[in-house]
Amino acid sequence: RAAGDADPDDELGRRCGRFMAPPVSALSELRARPDDVRTRMELLVLDTQARLCGALQLLDAGARFSVHRWRREEGGGGISCVLQDGHVFEKAGVNVSVVHGDLSEEAAQQMSRGRNLKAKDGKLPFVAMGVSSVIHPKNPHVPTMHFNYRYFEVEEADGNKLWWFGGGCDLTPTYLNKEDAVHFHRTLKEACDQHSPEFYPKFKKLCDDYFFIVHRGERRGIGGIFFDDLDSPSKEELFRFVQSCAQAVVPSYIPLVKKHCNDPFTPQEKMWQQLRRGRYVEFNLIYDRGTKFGLLTPGSRIESILMSLPLTARWEYMHTPSENSKEAEILEVLRHPRDWVH
Amino acid sequence: RAAGDADPDDELGRRCGRFMAPPVSALSELRARPDDVRTRMELLVLDTQARLCGALQLLDAGARFSVHRWRREEGGGGISCVLQDGHVFEKAGVNVSVVHGDLSEEAAQQMSRGRNLKAKDGKLPFVAMGVSSVIHPKNPHVPTMHFNYRYFEVEEADGNKLWWFGGGCDLTPTYLNKEDAVHFHRTLKEACDQHSPEFYPKFKKLCDDYFFIVHRGERRGIGGIFFDDLDSPSKEELFRFVQSCAQAVVPSYIPLVKKHCNDPFTPQEKMWQQLRRGRYVEFNLIYDRGTKFGLLTPGSRIESILMSLPLTARWEYMHTPSENSKEAEILEVLRHPRDWVH
Repeated sequence: RAAGDADPDDELGRRCGRFMAPPVSALSELRARPDDVRTRMELLVLDTQARLCGALQLLDAGARFSVHRWRREEGGGGISCVLQDGHVFEKAGVNVSVVHGDLSEEAAQQMSRGRNLKAKDGKLPFVAMGVSSVIHPKNPHVPTMHFNYRYFEVEEADGNKLWWFGGGCDLTPTYLNKEDAVHFHRTLKEACDQHSPEFYPKFKKLCDDYFFIVHRGERRGIGGIFFDDLDSPSKEELFRFVQSCAQAVVPSYIPLVKKHCNDPFTPQEKMWQQLRRGRYVEFNLIYDRGTKFGLLTPGSRIESILMSLPLTARWEYMHTPSENSKEAEILEVLRHPRDWVH
Repeated sequence: RAAGDADPDDELGRRCGRFMAPPVSALSELRARPDDVRTRMELLVLDTQARLCGALQLLDAGARFSVHRWRREEGGGGISCVLQDGHVFEKAGVNVSVVHGDLSEEAAQQMSRGRNLKAKDGKLPFVAMGVSSVIHPKNPHVPTMHFNYRYFEVEEADGNKLWWFGGGCDLTPTYLNKEDAVHFHRTLKEACDQHSPEFYPKFKKLCDDYFFIVHRGERRGIGGIFFDDLDSPSKEELFRFVQSCAQAVVPSYIPLVKKHCNDPFTPQEKMWQQLRRGRYVEFNLIYDRGTKFGLLTPGSRIESILMSLPLTARWEYMHTPSENSKEAEILEVLRHPRDWVH
């Protein structure tokens, strides 16, 4: 039987049948190590991609994701799903990658945020996998949403394996809607609270700190959660935490799209959205670590990295919203982040 | 008499009356050192700004430059002129800055590209001045043009003064027009050739090397000239060279605007222009040294730095022009730069 063919008694085959494309790893490989976090994480990211793409497609009648399954010459590959210029979404990208190979000591140090890794002959075998997504809707009353969940393993010269998780999910509205902000954060908080009461407050703060456009003195959005280099309490605990977070993506965001995708809007509101899109581009190209690292990594798939950019953006010289306007209201939150749930 | 008032016998006053705004330095200061290159360069950059703004305004009937004269808290200031959303120009920015103060050793080293400067109590007095401009026209058959000419001085602990010039001028067409490319480069070559036969070939190559979007394997535009850290043969010679270059801006570019600003174009051609604008944003935010340095410098004027960004831009996932199209033709040149004049 060819890999990917479904066998009625085969749970893995059935699961894979619901993905946007067959897994990056061979099914035989996934079957050989069903309990390994690498296997479970690869299935989780594929599942997260399929659920979100399915939900988005349902909302944007007639629009279809284009699916590209790509191979990376140095090892592994990915599945990029993009829906562009639909009725509801300007650009929605959901990307999975599962890559492996050897890292140079320099790249490993950069990836592991300063860990001192002992390489064998200057090389460190690694595995990195994750799902990342940016959803840019057309209607300025529907917020942009971004998330990313990833798992990383490096093997040192003595066979010791280091691993960590990273990720997060954050919201970038054009206009502030407090109810939406509370719903989004509450859903993420519930996912976090299942695992530790410390996670949500800590990761909300990290999110506000990370998505900071230094030269503007503004955050990219109104918050969410963000974490990196997470390696305790245990791999099992953290996998379950990341699983809860990944499963919270659809319920945190899709209701906001449904609620607002038919809201009326003015050309002025569309213009303000375009200006905010410009700030999104500034953050992603100047500050985002993932984008920077991706662009500098030989052999990386540029189209998948830059699919986070909006379809359209605008830069106006010296644009300042008038006092007490809806535009000034959201700017105030971007300058002084708020706690949406306690 | 107040500074800036014209005295009929006063050559400096008359010159200043033609600028977009009074010089950044006090007239008394400029009068006190008429032969100093700092004075002559400040007048040259103001003159270049005024001539270009005047020429652009003549072409875009009814559009006016908004002029902001700003002060920098740490010393000096600038004059930013921006014309936005005109009939002919989407965004045209022409910025002059004349700043001074103390550099940290770190900043000085970065600015002086590795020169080892001896500071007094960790500080290095500096003067930096220049004119920089980006012109984004509406019509996709009119190319975008950028130029920048700057002069830099740093004083070491022993009173020794280091100085250098930098700058360049380059063209970014949406579609290739060979005649235009030749006219533009020939005009720059003539300016260079007045000073040294080596300048043009050397600086054309530096331009192709500098404006390289590494992750795309494409240049931002089709060329021009670029130079930095120029400090020989002599300050006088180099000032005259930079003066010739600055005076070449209007004759190299304005005829191309006149020629094409009423060319008919299709929505598809406009779309391709928007995609190329996206690449322009990628270069400026990710690679451009001036932009990066500006954004990281406390107290710099963000609006003046980012006025180089187009009013509108677009990013499409996996856009590839069809073979033998006009779009593929320009991409080919961006991937393999050409010599337009010998």
